[in-house]
Amino acid sequence: MNPEIIVGQRKAMAERGLDALISMSPENVTYTTGIVVPSQSLMRWRHAIAVVTAGGEITMVVIDMEETTVRAHSGIKGLRVYREFTEDPMDKLCESLKNLKLEQAKIGIEMEYIPGKDLATLRQKLPGAVLVAADVIFQELRQVKSREELDLLRGLSKITDKAICDTLKHARAGMTEMDLAGLLVGGIFAAGAEQFKLMIIASGERSRFPNVGPTQRAIQTGDIIRMEIFGVKSGYHAGVCRTAVVGSPTPEQEKIWGNLIQCKYLVMDLIKPGAGCKDIYLKFLKKFSELGFEPISFVGHGIGLFLHEEPYLGRYGDKTLQEGMVLAIEPLVFIPERMGLQNKDMIAVTKNGCELLSDYTPTDRLIRVG
Amino acid sequence: MNPEIIVGQRKAMAERGLDALISMSPENVTYTTGIVVPSQSLMRWRHAIAVVTAGGEITMVVIDMEETTVRAHSGIKGLRVYREFTEDPMDKLCESLKNLKLEQAKIGIEMEYIPGKDLATLRQKLPGAVLVAADVIFQELRQVKSREELDLLRGLSKITDKAICDTLKHARAGMTEMDLAGLLVGGIFAAGAEQFKLMIIASGERSRFPNVGPTQRAIQTGDIIRMEIFGVKSGYHAGVCRTAVVGSPTPEQEKIWGNLIQCKYLVMDLIKPGAGCKDIYLKFLKKFSELGFEPISFVGHGIGLFLHEEPYLGRYGDKTLQEGMVLAIEPLVFIPERMGLQNKDMIAVTKNGCELLSDYTPTDRLIRVG
Repeated sequence: MNPEIIVGQRKAMAERGLDALISMSPENVTYTTGIVVPSQSLMRWRHAIAVVTAGGEITMVVIDMEETTVRAHSGIKGLRVYREFTEDPMDKLCESLKNLKLEQAKIGIEMEYIPGKDLATLRQKLPGAVLVAADVIFQELRQVKSREELDLLRGLSKITDKAICDTLKHARAGMTEMDLAGLLVGGIFAAGAEQFKLMIIASGERSRFPNVGPTQRAIQTGDIIRMEIFGVKSGYHAGVCRTAVVGSPTPEQEKIWGNLIQCKYLVMDLIKPGAGCKDIYLKFLKKFSELGFEPISFVGHGIGLFLHEEPYLGRYGDKTLQEGMVLAIEPLVFIPERMGLQNKDMIAVTKNGCELLSDYTPTDRLIRVG
Repeated sequence: MNPEIIVGQRKAMAERGLDALISMSPENVTYTTGIVVPSQSLMRWRHAIAVVTAGGEITMVVIDMEETTVRAHSGIKGLRVYREFTEDPMDKLCESLKNLKLEQAKIGIEMEYIPGKDLATLRQKLPGAVLVAADVIFQELRQVKSREELDLLRGLSKITDKAICDTLKHARAGMTEMDLAGLLVGGIFAAGAEQFKLMIIASGERSRFPNVGPTQRAIQTGDIIRMEIFGVKSGYHAGVCRTAVVGSPTPEQEKIWGNLIQCKYLVMDLIKPGAGCKDIYLKFLKKFSELGFEPISFVGHGIGLFLHEEPYLGRYGDKTLQEGMVLAIEPLVFIPERMGLQNKDMIAVTKNGCELLSDYTPTDRLIRVG
């Protein structure tokens, strides 16, 4: 548990007149407690819940099966354990709240996460409490990373970038996307990631589909290979995407890639504390429009305990950048029926500009493999 | 899309007087439509929703970014697309329901999945509709697998079992759990899995923790290695766990393993259509109690589109086995402060008994490695 994060939550509660803040989603429970409860994100009825009071008291509700793990890895003393199948975690949460004298309190809760059934139970058992949406509090707090979070994301970005780079070095015509997947995931784990999300290996005509995993499709000479993965460690994510061509690029592919990389440097030049997210997107759009293809509605997004977070560098972005934010920026183009090219980097906002966290793979020219 | 599955949903609706059934969770959307919407399970606001009417009409709500993928892989014509950031998928769902003349209808919905915020939106926009919990309908329907589902799970069980077996063959003192993770995941992907969940690599004293992933801990002679993984393909899961000892087992370890394997065969002998789930658990318990350790509350569980499903072979299991069910059975022991041993197999209920789907690794004796 990071005391700095609890201080932030207490400040947010004071500003909004809240008596307590409940984390229920895997990302916010990890944010609050510093630990990843292993099966929470796997079985959604296996709730893990953290309560922080306005006074700074912290309690947690966990399933019996994870009790030993949570006790071994967290310093939280107020632990309430429910038995799977026979006890409802909402009952334990209500007991916790009553024990903290919060039956009549104003409590922030994640309305975008709590299932309808559980919310109904809470409302029935705590009729005097006022439950208000607190999703935005967590979103705002999580935007600016602590030094520890930054260090973790920096290391993870390099691991992720290197795993993709090393995999592409082995790509040859005749290998399948699945073969590449084996190399990529093997590499990312051996380098120290604990998990990954959203592995995209899309070759040839499949490269035009936004979020597709690997298949048994065999790589052919002339193919584009779009390869993206989010390395995960201690609940944090680093998303990197690289694009390669098997053999030599066509003039059109070189032209597209040249524009995407110009967009990357343009966006990096604009990223600094005080910059407006929408303004960066619009300047990107001007450069990107030289290609004449349809853009997506953002060129970057915050990243950390969730793979997409605020702030979005996008058409609807209303945030201003601050030192300590971490962004994934991803100029890309999907040409219907033909191909997709994408480059995604991890970037930290520094005092005067930005730092490229995923700095392993040279991307100024379209990567050639095979 | 499997017409057999739509027939099952229509039958369930007729029995309960429902006019429509809404799937919202990744597992039930895949069950209904036959496709995995890639980013649905990654970003929970990127809802994908399927509606099946009592008359058998099928419509779907998907995010703009996945439109091309869904159109390319599903035969569903009634597709409503929402724009991320500016449109609420609940609005599109309401439009769909109104278009189907369901404003005053009785509609089954996943109350254990839909977030409180979205449920509130639906209730506000469709005040005349009666929304009832339909979670149990999907649970019941999904218990008995079709021939296609069985074939998929059989192949995936073998892939998963073999990936673990091959990884353990390479285990040596001095390697880290992460090194083994790289081999395991690389192997499972290269063999054709598209994803995995809940990789447990727990060695030495860490073997006693139920659901922990790999770390940089180096394997030592004398260690127990508990290795579990769920291979995933087309949204389906196969969970397999094996336990090995680095070097030679102690007499205590051999005794424990002997009991766990006797439990495995005992449970397999009992599995057949008509058998009661609780009865199987109690008979397992009698055998397991010879060891004198604390048992967990189930020895097996259904598996398919979710990694734990009904029926549970457990203390609170109230189901009767039927042909076509697929179970993961897992005799295990966690000895506090010392070690954990576990063996998990995939089993299909056949006409007269059962079929071991994960039949690659010999487990009658504790696996020796190093």
